[in-house]
Order: sequence, then C-alpha cells, then structure tokens
Amino acid sequence: MNVQPLGLARLLADIEGGRATAARTIAAAQERIDALDGELAAFVRRAPEASIDAAMTATGPLAGVPFGVKDIFDTADMATEHGSPLYAGHRPVADAALVAMARGAGAAILGKTATTQFASLDPCATRNPHDPSRTPGGSSSGSAAAVAAGMVAGACGSQTGGSVLRPASYCGVAGYKPSFRLLPTVGMKTFAWSLDTVGLFAAGVADVALLAAKLTGRALAAPPLADASGLTIGLYRSSVDAGIEKEMQAAWDDAARALEAAGATLVELVEPAALSAARDVHGTVQNFEAAHALMWEHRTHREAMAPRVLAQLDEGAATSPAAYDAGRRTARIGRRAATTLFETVDALLLPSALGAAPEGLGSTGDPALNKLWTLTGNPAVSVPGLATAGGLPLGISIVARFGRDAEALAIGALLETRLRA
Amino acid sequence: MNVQPLGLARLLADIEGGRATAARTIAAAQERIDALDGELAAFVRRAPEASIDAAMTATGPLAGVPFGVKDIFDTADMATEHGSPLYAGHRPVADAALVAMARGAGAAILGKTATTQFASLDPCATRNPHDPSRTPGGSSSGSAAAVAAGMVAGACGSQTGGSVLRPASYCGVAGYKPSFRLLPTVGMKTFAWSLDTVGLFAAGVADVALLAAKLTGRALAAPPLADASGLTIGLYRSSVDAGIEKEMQAAWDDAARALEAAGATLVELVEPAALSAARDVHGTVQNFEAAHALMWEHRTHREAMAPRVLAQLDEGAATSPAAYDAGRRTARIGRRAATTLFETVDALLLPSALGAAPEGLGSTGDPALNKLWTLTGNPAVSVPGLATAGGLPLGISIVARFGRDAEALAIGALLETRLRA
Repeated sequence: MNVQPLGLARLLADIEGGRATAARTIAAAQERIDALDGELAAFVRRAPEASIDAAMTATGPLAGVPFGVKDIFDTADMATEHGSPLYAGHRPVADAALVAMARGAGAAILGKTATTQFASLDPCATRNPHDPSRTPGGSSSGSAAAVAAGMVAGACGSQTGGSVLRPASYCGVAGYKPSFRLLPTVGMKTFAWSLDTVGLFAAGVADVALLAAKLTGRALAAPPLADASGLTIGLYRSSVDAGIEKEMQAAWDDAARALEAAGATLVELVEPAALSAARDVHGTVQNFEAAHALMWEHRTHREAMAPRVLAQLDEGAATSPAAYDAGRRTARIGRRAATTLFETVDALLLPSALGAAPEGLGSTGDPALNKLWTLTGNPAVSVPGLATAGGLPLGISIVARFGRDAEALAIGALLETRLRA
Repeated sequence: MNVQPLGLARLLADIEGGRATAARTIAAAQERIDALDGELAAFVRRAPEASIDAAMTATGPLAGVPFGVKDIFDTADMATEHGSPLYAGHRPVADAALVAMARGAGAAILGKTATTQFASLDPCATRNPHDPSRTPGGSSSGSAAAVAAGMVAGACGSQTGGSVLRPASYCGVAGYKPSFRLLPTVGMKTFAWSLDTVGLFAAGVADVALLAAKLTGRALAAPPLADASGLTIGLYRSSVDAGIEKEMQAAWDDAARALEAAGATLVELVEPAALSAARDVHGTVQNFEAAHALMWEHRTHREAMAPRVLAQLDEGAATSPAAYDAGRRTARIGRRAATTLFETVDALLLPSALGAAPEGLGSTGDPALNKLWTLTGNPAVSVPGLATAGGLPLGISIVARFGRDAEALAIGALLETRLRA
C-alpha cells in the first residue's frame, strides 16, 4: 500500500497560497478513502453529502482540512456507535465539544473512524496501512490509520491507557496527548473520567501542533527550535523497559543521539517508586470508573460486551470504593512525583510502544509505556520518523511537565526534523 | 400546602420492620405526585408504567424508596430534555451512571424533575412547596421541591454554582454536595466540567447521608455524634456576607449557638484573599467551559437559548484561553487555601443562601454563598430546621475538608438534631 500522509502545515500553506482549494482537497481525500478503505477499514461511517457540501465552503483556520472523528465522539449529523452493537444507528442530538470546535474552525469532517468497543482493548477491523496484516493499534485505530494513509490530514482520538500514542507509533504518524483536560471530553463516551484524554493525530509533530493551535486558539504551534542547546532531556528508565523490543531500543538510542547532536544534555532518570506505584494502580482506577461509567451497558446488556472490556467491567464492579480511593491517593502522589521530575529535566524521552505493530489483528498491542503518563496527566507527543529494518514505524515519545504542551510539541518537532535530516 | 417530607431513614426502617412495603410506599408517593404536582410542577415527566412495576419488586438497599431524577441525567426509559426545547422528546440509549447506581440499589425512579435550562439560571415552572408564590431555587428546582413535598424520599441534582445547597435551603430539606467527583457525572449534561458536581436531596441530613451510603457503598452514614465536644467550627466570614438578610443572619447565629451548646469550640474565620480571588474567577471558569460544553447548542440554535444561559455562553465564547488558564490557576491556589483552613477547624458554618426563598418565580435566587465551595470541591451539606418568622425555611451549611464527606454529614446531622430539640 502506498502510505503517504497528508501534511497539515503544507496543506494549509497551499490553500492560503492559492495552490490548493478546500473543495479539491476534500474531494481528493474522499477519493482516497474510496480507494483505500475497503482494505483498511479505518472508517465505520462516512459523513452525509450535505455535511461534505457545507464543509467545501466552510471558513475558519482549518477550512479545507479533511478530518476524521473517532466513533466515540458524538456527531449531530451521523450515528455514533462506540464500537458497540448496543449503539447501532444511535444518532446524538448534538456534536461533542471537540467536534463542534473542529466544525467551528472550518474542518471538513469526512466520517467516523473505527474504535475498539468503548475505546477498550477488543480489536476492531482496522488494518495498519504499513502492513495490512498488522494491527494499527488501538483504541483510536481508525483515526491513526486514516491519517497514516492520507485519507484525512487530522483526526481526533482518546487515550485512557495508551490509545493515542501507541497507534500513532504503529502507524508512523504524530500523536499528541495533551495535558489532562486541555481538550474537552464533553460528548465523548466516558470510560474512566479521571484518565480519559482527548488526543489528536496528524502526519508530523509540526502538523499536530498546528492542528491543536487552530482548534483551541492556544499558542501550541511555537516557532521551530533552531537546536536543542540549553535543553536537558531525561532518558526515562523503568521496569517496563524489560519488554522493549530490540529495534525499538535502537530507535530510542537513535532519538537520544539525535537530540544530543542537536545540543541537548541527556541524563539518565530511573523511575521513582512513587511513579511505579502510580502505574500499578492505573487498572484499579480505570476499571472502577469504567464499571460506573458503563454500568447500564454492563448490567443490562452483558451479552453484548466484547470479552476484554467485559473482564475490565467485571473487575471494576468487584473493586471496593476503599481500593479505588487508595488508588486515587497513589495516583495523586504519582502526579506530584511527576512534577518533581521536571525540576531537573525539560522533557522525558521514551519509546511510544514496546516495538513495532504486532502481527495480526487479534490484539491492539500493549500500552505499558503510555499509561503512567495518562494517569499523571502530563502532555506527550509521539514522534514518527524511525522504523524497523523491515520498514515498520517506531514512535518515540516526548513527555513534558503538566501544562507545558507547547514545550513537548516544540521538542518533538525538533526531534522529528533531526530524524528526517 | 401540607408540606411533609418523606424521611428515608424511617421509611427504610419501616420496610425492613415489615411496617411498610415497597409497593405501597411507591403507590402512595405516586398518589402524592398526582395530588400535588399540578400546582408544584416539580416533575416534567413521570416514569412509564413498566418501570414503576419493575421498581415495585426491585431488590437492593434502596428498594421501595421513591426517587426523583433531575432532567439533565440520562434515563433509558424516558426522555431527557435538559430544560431545553432542543431536546424535546430526546430519549437516551443508556442510564446515566448515577441513575444506574440508583436502579441497581433498587430505588424507584418515579420521574424526571424540573431543571432550569441546561442547569443554569433561567427559572423553570416549579413552585416552592412552602409558598407556591416563591421560587424553590435552582437549578435543581424540581428535585428540591419534590423531596420537600414528600413526593419522593430522595432525589439527585447537580451544582455548578449553588444549585443543590440553595434549593435545599429554600425548600427546607437537606442538600448534600459531595467532594468533587465522589458521585459520577457520566451521562449528566455538562455545563462546566471542572465545577459540575452531582448532589443529593432528602428530608434530613441523616436521610441524605443514608441515601449516599446506599447508593455508593461508602461509609457515609456514620453513627450519630453524641455531641460536638472536641470539634472546632469556623464561622466563615467573607465580603459576600453583606448580602445576608437579617433573619438568615439570626439563623446562622442560632446554628452557631446550637453547636456551641453541644460542646463545639467556635472560632471566627475571615476569608483569606486566595479564597476571595477564587470566588471571583468562578464565572470565568464556568462560562469558558460552558461555551465549549454547549458549543453546538450555542452556535447552531442561538434562538432556542434562554436569556441568562445565552448571556453566559456569549461571555464564555468571548473569554480567551489565557484568561481561562489564569482563572484555573487562581482556582488551584484557592483549593490549597481551602485545605489550609481545615488545619485549624473541623468544619465551616455558613448560611446556605442569603435569605429565604425570594418572592416570585422570576429568579432562582443568588448562589453567592455556595459557588466558592463548588469551585474548591469541598463537601458541603445544607441543614434544614430553621425558619423565618413567617415560616419560610432557612438552611445552614456545613463545609468540610476535601474527602471528609462523612464528617460534614455527621456534623450536619448533629446540628439538625440539636435544632429540632
């Protein structure tokens, strides 16, 4: 498959410069979806013609930008099914906040992208554009694949464990998980309210920063860093690293060397106990909340639940409030420990996944390296550009201090540039 | 009107002791709604017969308890309209988390209670059971009125400014606003995600504590305190007090004297600057978030919005991310200052509203005394039992340290007992 993402920065410059029009860009994206999605199954639903027509003449900072919306975000103009048969044909009254923001900015929402059931771990039908025999990762499977295949220039997803950074890594695109609650979750199906984080996908880091900036009106797309001088980057080492595959380990080393060559000071950071403990309670917090958020589904339609999400809900329903409260306390201590880390470094560098996309569609892969940072709420961006010898993408994450999203994106963009050079 | 709330503790004891049955209790509540709601308009929708039939034979710790659900919580068996014509007849797929919890505990949901539009400040048709020419307060107008009139023994509401404590005060019932996120907001219409707090109403403080305990499985209904010896209670003084009416000021004094007589040490606490500043940014934070949460409604159906909520949304849409971020920082500092307060006192004592329910239905009253504690997330309970010379209820709030909900409820219950003695 010819995998060629559609760079958002370039696209917007072309539209602004009169070298492209919104209508032609949207039509071309539609054609690409027509051509590729039979094999990739990135989309579960295409936007109605009236919405496409409206998007062709929309105005705003994202006018002409083909955009995909994960099918756990409510859309007023088409169904929202959360990857579950319980919601077959369900048509929300209103757009989710993020969808309204995207439309308000003029983005062309071309359809709903495939999600695992309720954004958990049971795979959906989407295939990895770099190798259709492999998973694109999850739970934002369709959004990552659609951006990787150039069907859209941007897409939204969500991360409760590693559902943005991991598929971004597997699909060779940039994935941005903002600081907790920077992007609103209103109108998105809740899995775990203290973890669910709206994220974005685009071709590269500069593209995803621009997308976030145009969506929110925030200064997230800073001018590129000339180099990394003055920056201290922590190589974050934890017990989870034991599962990192050899080629990902090499990619991590390459990324570190690239930043060092750009002038950064690298330091080794061994995970403090408070952060190991925080990672260990992620599941307890997540599943207790999910058992409440999805109580109606779990109690009244047990038979309709996919096996992995059902197991999580069963576990959550069996978790006591006291165990949950203890988990929340551990998480709070972990958040403070994360903040302390950034007293000595500007950012952390670590792999976005244990390795390249696993073979087959039976699993969406392992969020082991991501879920701690979802729990702490720190901003993170997965930087594309590295690959296995066989050409499969390998993403490297930059994690920054809470609220320092622009810094994470700027360092990520610099790393991306250096890896491409 | 014969205003007689239905005590939950007594009701459960009667059912357990065989002196009442679930079916008869539910039928009696239905009759009371039939008789009174023509005048009170506490309900906007009654539950379908099949749901009532199911509730008659339900099991669980709240079996036989007539319950009202504010019409911003999704219900799978009836429409959920958020007080807005935009949602006329809207039927959600699933129950909100709190509704599922109530049903799971066996509660009999008899209908949806009236809410101001999107739980903001534009009054709905509900009247105050103590004086039908007066407002019941808002935004949880119907839930407070339904509990006050004995139509239900418990009800849920939500508070973004003062939408639980104020109507509880005006209607002479107990209102409990838990620590932020103790009760899940999933499936509830969002107004402002960092403020929206699910709350509960019941006849008295012991009742609302029992309701919360049975709903959540948490130890919130502690054994009654014998007295207040060893407790230090802060009389919380702020610039907002200038608006407190004379009879409420006297009620506040009475409550303080009652706790002192019970053995408590009273201390004067003058509001620290960090908490004045936090109150001042409540509107900025609220309206910015509301403009995102209700972006679809605001942008596409401006003409359908009631005037006060429209003004809030217009203001929120004009608020910059930088102003919002500054407000959030001020709120965070306020939260820390609130925690510091509780290093010297066990609880704060302050009025739940500036006075009794105002005359007329043109306004739901002023949340000036409540909104700070919504912003800080501290648990609060409005204690009924005091009244004006004319017999209108006056509620007094107990506010406790974040996470010390059981303590707030226990002190509130003690105060209630002493006021009744």
